[in-house]
Amino acid sequence: MDTYVNDFLSRLFRVSQNVDSINLAIGQPNFKPPECVLNELKKNIGSYTKYTDVEGLPELRTLIQKKLIIENKIKAEKIIVTNGAIEAIFDTMLTYLNRDSEIILFSPYYGKYTTVPKLFGSKIKKISLNNNNRPDFETLKQSITKKTRMIIVNSPCNPTGVVFSRDEVKQLIEIVEKHDLIVLSDEVYEKYIYDGKEHVSPGQYSDNVITINSFSKTYSLPGLRLGYLAGTPDLVDSILDIHMSNTICSSYASQMAAIRALKLKKDCFDLSSFERRRKLSMNILNDNEIEYIYPEGAFYLYIYVHQDSVLLAQRLLDNKLLVMPSMLFGDVHNAVRISYATDKETLEKGLELLIINMEQRAVDVYHKNH
Amino acid sequence: MDTYVNDFLSRLFRVSQNVDSINLAIGQPNFKPPECVLNELKKNIGSYTKYTDVEGLPELRTLIQKKLIIENKIKAEKIIVTNGAIEAIFDTMLTYLNRDSEIILFSPYYGKYTTVPKLFGSKIKKISLNNNNRPDFETLKQSITKKTRMIIVNSPCNPTGVVFSRDEVKQLIEIVEKHDLIVLSDEVYEKYIYDGKEHVSPGQYSDNVITINSFSKTYSLPGLRLGYLAGTPDLVDSILDIHMSNTICSSYASQMAAIRALKLKKDCFDLSSFERRRKLSMNILNDNEIEYIYPEGAFYLYIYVHQDSVLLAQRLLDNKLLVMPSMLFGDVHNAVRISYATDKETLEKGLELLIINMEQRAVDVYHKNH
Repeated sequence: MDTYVNDFLSRLFRVSQNVDSINLAIGQPNFKPPECVLNELKKNIGSYTKYTDVEGLPELRTLIQKKLIIENKIKAEKIIVTNGAIEAIFDTMLTYLNRDSEIILFSPYYGKYTTVPKLFGSKIKKISLNNNNRPDFETLKQSITKKTRMIIVNSPCNPTGVVFSRDEVKQLIEIVEKHDLIVLSDEVYEKYIYDGKEHVSPGQYSDNVITINSFSKTYSLPGLRLGYLAGTPDLVDSILDIHMSNTICSSYASQMAAIRALKLKKDCFDLSSFERRRKLSMNILNDNEIEYIYPEGAFYLYIYVHQDSVLLAQRLLDNKLLVMPSMLFGDVHNAVRISYATDKETLEKGLELLIINMEQRAVDVYHKNH
Repeated sequence: MDTYVNDFLSRLFRVSQNVDSINLAIGQPNFKPPECVLNELKKNIGSYTKYTDVEGLPELRTLIQKKLIIENKIKAEKIIVTNGAIEAIFDTMLTYLNRDSEIILFSPYYGKYTTVPKLFGSKIKKISLNNNNRPDFETLKQSITKKTRMIIVNSPCNPTGVVFSRDEVKQLIEIVEKHDLIVLSDEVYEKYIYDGKEHVSPGQYSDNVITINSFSKTYSLPGLRLGYLAGTPDLVDSILDIHMSNTICSSYASQMAAIRALKLKKDCFDLSSFERRRKLSMNILNDNEIEYIYPEGAFYLYIYVHQDSVLLAQRLLDNKLLVMPSMLFGDVHNAVRISYATDKETLEKGLELLIINMEQRAVDVYHKNH
């Protein structure tokens, strides 16, 4: 199965290099990063050639702590700066999981969450959304055993756009504290929230939370490869060992850019432009009576295709349309994820092609059965 | 013990921040990185903000392949660009070790090699140097079992400066091929070789080798956090899974700097300046009849102190002299590593202080016994 995924992704990557491909598989924002951040690098990059402290530059860590207090109401005593949020996730799981532990994921989920559990042979328990497409705390409670060590929360969620409400965060924390579990809270899409909803960090309610974030989505700077994890010394100190043996530290220049970014006085992208494309996509889907999970955040739509989504995604690739089959997000075979972090024209063309191909299959099935 | 190491390293780091500390613990070169590499970044950094291919930029991989053919006689079909050599080492071990496997290290060794084996509970077998301070192939042969999966070779070696001769590389490869083991060859110090000796890459003699290198030591650019691993598709393809889930890709800007670095027509540092400081250090040690392992490469001296080197290193820290106790390189308690990648004055002052403190202890012991 993993080979299968890799083969699909390789092919997807090859097709994406084609100039006339229609890419709705993109996982990075399409706005220009802040000029001042890049200027900072241009001016001083010659000074950023050495190792930094393994935890990250002290000024950067202080700025992250301030950001967490002001924006997330989290008082994080310890910060480790990492090579993107992904390294923070990887290091945290390597530190806290083993072959006897169980990890709980809300499904569908970002596919890379399962790499470390699979490496160790930890048991992975998946909690599907309930009938209202909300996190299912009843099933969560029933899934916890003595071996449960960690719960992953990714709000706003990739691939569904589901955002935990404050009440849901509180319900989660109550369960977590009762069983003394660790929450890994991946908050990289925190700035992408629509309809006036709020981002609520679980870390503001409990010391059992490791909060993870990055500069990729907020500042449109995935190329920096810069993220961080934050929490109490109790939780974070043991992760430092792994981080030091994994990457030592992050790029000095990237850390300097991040310092500049955190000093910006306001958010550096226009959320309304994402809001518009989200509305546009939903309108097209609604007009064609196609089901999807209502996206409260992030920049993805999780669309039910009522057919084998891998076969569909492969057929779409033949037509140079790139979408992600749901298999990549927890083995559910009947949905695709599209990203609307692209221009309006691409989005309209892509959705049209998706819908035609979905219906084509419906017609095929009809013909086969009649 | 790991807490103990961390406490020591934290204290060492704190003392190193002190302006009048004498730092002989440094693991990075002290020459200026090539100007043209930094200029490349200054000019175009605004274009380097997105993700790259997970394996690294195609142009960079092609240049690395050319470098490996020309300089190392290695035809590596597959390259993965990583966050420093350290990520390459980490990813390779995570891919190929498990709790049932055994790994062999030539001792003393770079301390971070043991993190993944300890994480998995893999058995670590240490092969000490023989009486002539050479790799001990007889003991190596006897140490191999059916569970042995990997041998780490680090030539030139951190901390000893030992360099495998061509004959030794051939002996190693014969054993490796006979038992179908994997060699992880960490070659980050390849440019630091003295007395007209040569660097011989094991990868030129066998497909069982994963060759790892970085831009940190060769170009004095550890702040880029850029390295790579190279080998056959058979060996490298499975590592890509882990790399993708660990760091996705390396900093785009760092990769562009590395492209520029690999286009340089000649080595960008003056080896003779390292040679001079190496000779200076050896002369001082010889004059004081202090034993050390003859350093053929790298920029370290492994000095026998004939006393508990942790206690010594801590006493030296009280005097603001930073050295690394041998415990960090495989639990041998009677040596320290010094780095001569520093200026002549610091080196002389540091060695003098080391020698005084070593003798002080000898006098203490004498007084205690008489």
